[in-house]
Amino acid sequence: MDLDLMRELSVSTDSRIVLLVLDGLGGLPMDPFGRTELEAANTPNLDSLAARSDLGLSRPVAAGVSPGSGPGHLALFGYNPLEYEVGRGVLSALGVGFELGENDLAARINFATRDESGKISDRRAGRIANEEASKLVDLLNEDVELDGAEVFITHEKEHRAVAVFRADGLSDALSDSDPQRTGLEPLPVEPADGTGDGAKKSAELANAFIEEANAILADHHPANTVLLRGFGMHPALPRFDEVYKLRAAAIAGYPMYKGLARLAGMEVLKEGEGIAGEFETLKHNWDTFDFFFIHVKATDAAGEDGDFERKSAVIEEADALIPELLDLSSAALAVTGDHATPAKMESHSWHGVPFLLSSEYTLPTSESFGERACAGGSLGVFPAEEIMGLLMGHALKLNRYGA
Amino acid sequence: MDLDLMRELSVSTDSRIVLLVLDGLGGLPMDPFGRTELEAANTPNLDSLAARSDLGLSRPVAAGVSPGSGPGHLALFGYNPLEYEVGRGVLSALGVGFELGENDLAARINFATRDESGKISDRRAGRIANEEASKLVDLLNEDVELDGAEVFITHEKEHRAVAVFRADGLSDALSDSDPQRTGLEPLPVEPADGTGDGAKKSAELANAFIEEANAILADHHPANTVLLRGFGMHPALPRFDEVYKLRAAAIAGYPMYKGLARLAGMEVLKEGEGIAGEFETLKHNWDTFDFFFIHVKATDAAGEDGDFERKSAVIEEADALIPELLDLSSAALAVTGDHATPAKMESHSWHGVPFLLSSEYTLPTSESFGERACAGGSLGVFPAEEIMGLLMGHALKLNRYGA
Repeated sequence: MDLDLMRELSVSTDSRIVLLVLDGLGGLPMDPFGRTELEAANTPNLDSLAARSDLGLSRPVAAGVSPGSGPGHLALFGYNPLEYEVGRGVLSALGVGFELGENDLAARINFATRDESGKISDRRAGRIANEEASKLVDLLNEDVELDGAEVFITHEKEHRAVAVFRADGLSDALSDSDPQRTGLEPLPVEPADGTGDGAKKSAELANAFIEEANAILADHHPANTVLLRGFGMHPALPRFDEVYKLRAAAIAGYPMYKGLARLAGMEVLKEGEGIAGEFETLKHNWDTFDFFFIHVKATDAAGEDGDFERKSAVIEEADALIPELLDLSSAALAVTGDHATPAKMESHSWHGVPFLLSSEYTLPTSESFGERACAGGSLGVFPAEEIMGLLMGHALKLNRYGA
Repeated sequence: MDLDLMRELSVSTDSRIVLLVLDGLGGLPMDPFGRTELEAANTPNLDSLAARSDLGLSRPVAAGVSPGSGPGHLALFGYNPLEYEVGRGVLSALGVGFELGENDLAARINFATRDESGKISDRRAGRIANEEASKLVDLLNEDVELDGAEVFITHEKEHRAVAVFRADGLSDALSDSDPQRTGLEPLPVEPADGTGDGAKKSAELANAFIEEANAILADHHPANTVLLRGFGMHPALPRFDEVYKLRAAAIAGYPMYKGLARLAGMEVLKEGEGIAGEFETLKHNWDTFDFFFIHVKATDAAGEDGDFERKSAVIEEADALIPELLDLSSAALAVTGDHATPAKMESHSWHGVPFLLSSEYTLPTSESFGERACAGGSLGVFPAEEIMGLLMGHALKLNRYGA
């Protein structure tokens, strides 16, 4: 989306926009003659909504490219996911619920095993148990002391944790210490070529951290060292209030999606239990905001598990609650996903994502909501980063361009 | 459109291209289960043409963005409407039929009321009558004398007029004098930051004009001052003959569309009465040009009035005359709009615009011409600025790209 154009044309009005994201909604038939998860699901409410909606298939990043959750959501929020990057360290920090500040430098930590010659013999420290890793994280938080910076370690899962360095003037233009293969020594963290004092200082901090961690972990074989990778700073995303003049709220159960929404300037609301609880939260906050992003994770999880039936069932659960959304009379309501997660592939994929937009001003083309109905819709196949423009237009929140 | 690519590949041939623009052609059903203006119209000729044509839905500017007539037509002529801008003053000058030269600086004028303390008490001078405003325009044209520049004032409607300043080295990097609200003093016209002598000179001219106008209008309360806004110079649009090697002609009833065509280097032909008259003009000039832009305004006017039936009737009127176009055997004929003007919205909108391209080399997909048929057409949903490339290709006026 051309954010400058949005800045120029957007106006604040009373109308409400709802963006309901069923994570990994897009799917595939298990065999070529079959139906997708969405097509197979019994969705009377979404079907009747589709009959009054614009339909299309959205493409999150680029042809053939499977997006991670970060780029998938950045596109939904109108940011070009190739232009605006969120580093892996940042996504991990958001994922553990760390409230990343603008001076914070985040990195992924792997607990690893170093042999007597100093070479890495296991990059995952035997995938140590959560409980054990968690204790080591506590130990690091207590004992590491860096000169001129704070550091916060948060355990993620098994051998994985997140480090956040906090000091003025840091930079993420840094190489990883992870050598990527066993049998090699860890690499020193180094500032990228042509970068300035910030990167130099950050590299020194990271290397000092590794050195202290090595001393603290020396007797904790197999987790006797840490590897750092994916350095990232809080990205400078234009904020929803500034670009779209929207007072935006996010309703999501998982920390990473809350974090992504917070990066875009949304206020994260306390969500209830499950989809029904999320919709309750929506109702309670209807008067306070004019944009709502609602995130449902279970569709993606079922797809990742290769569970076609369960993914359809989650879609049916959402369908049954659609009337609650409709009762709120938003000016523009979109139902879509951030990417496809076909059960057949057990992973995110590059396929088109079903997109439905309901408003007063639609050109309906089908009486059902599904991938093939969307492919023939009035929106055609289109980049996901255009979704915010469409929502703003349908909610009559954009001035005319030119005379 | 990549104009450099067009320059590189275009060849001059004997074949003829016709671009028939039914202004604001795109529409919406009044209720979700109904038909659009075009779908509801009885159009046997367009339907039978559609059955031999490529169909698609074109998008003029960007997702959700409703275009003005300027950007809408720039896109139809192959110019990226976000890259090539036509200032509001320029559009107004074109709209009153002023033949803007390359050194001319245009601005919109509002006659306004200034109270005794010098503050603006009415930005529209009580929307004074056309006759009265017209007299004041004559007065200004007679009495204003600027040092080193000519100025031409043309009345538009009620309190609105257009000023064109003519001198060497002018610039439109100027702020408005219109304070946008009553109770404030008019602002001095100022050159934008970082601009040079041209903007400084232009600002001085504009302020001198306002000062003289104030003296001349002093006794003409409520129209005792003028506000200037929307400064714009003749935009440097690449010309049709240079980019496409086309000898292009425009047939349009309204000054603004004639002016836009002239900006693109088209020759404006004297048009006859109504659509039939325009088609007569086309026939008379068939041998002299190889590209014809024909503009029909009445579809847009009906849409703006919210008159669904009248818009359908205008489409039917055009349909009845389509055989006259077909008799001319153009190599490529497009029937489309510059944007949607759904009667339901009574305004321009962001929706897809039906597009039909007839030539020897088409892949027909439907036996009727309408929004939904176009959404499922062989061209899909596509940017309007690609239309010129399609027309050039279908008329066999583009060389192969690469070996």
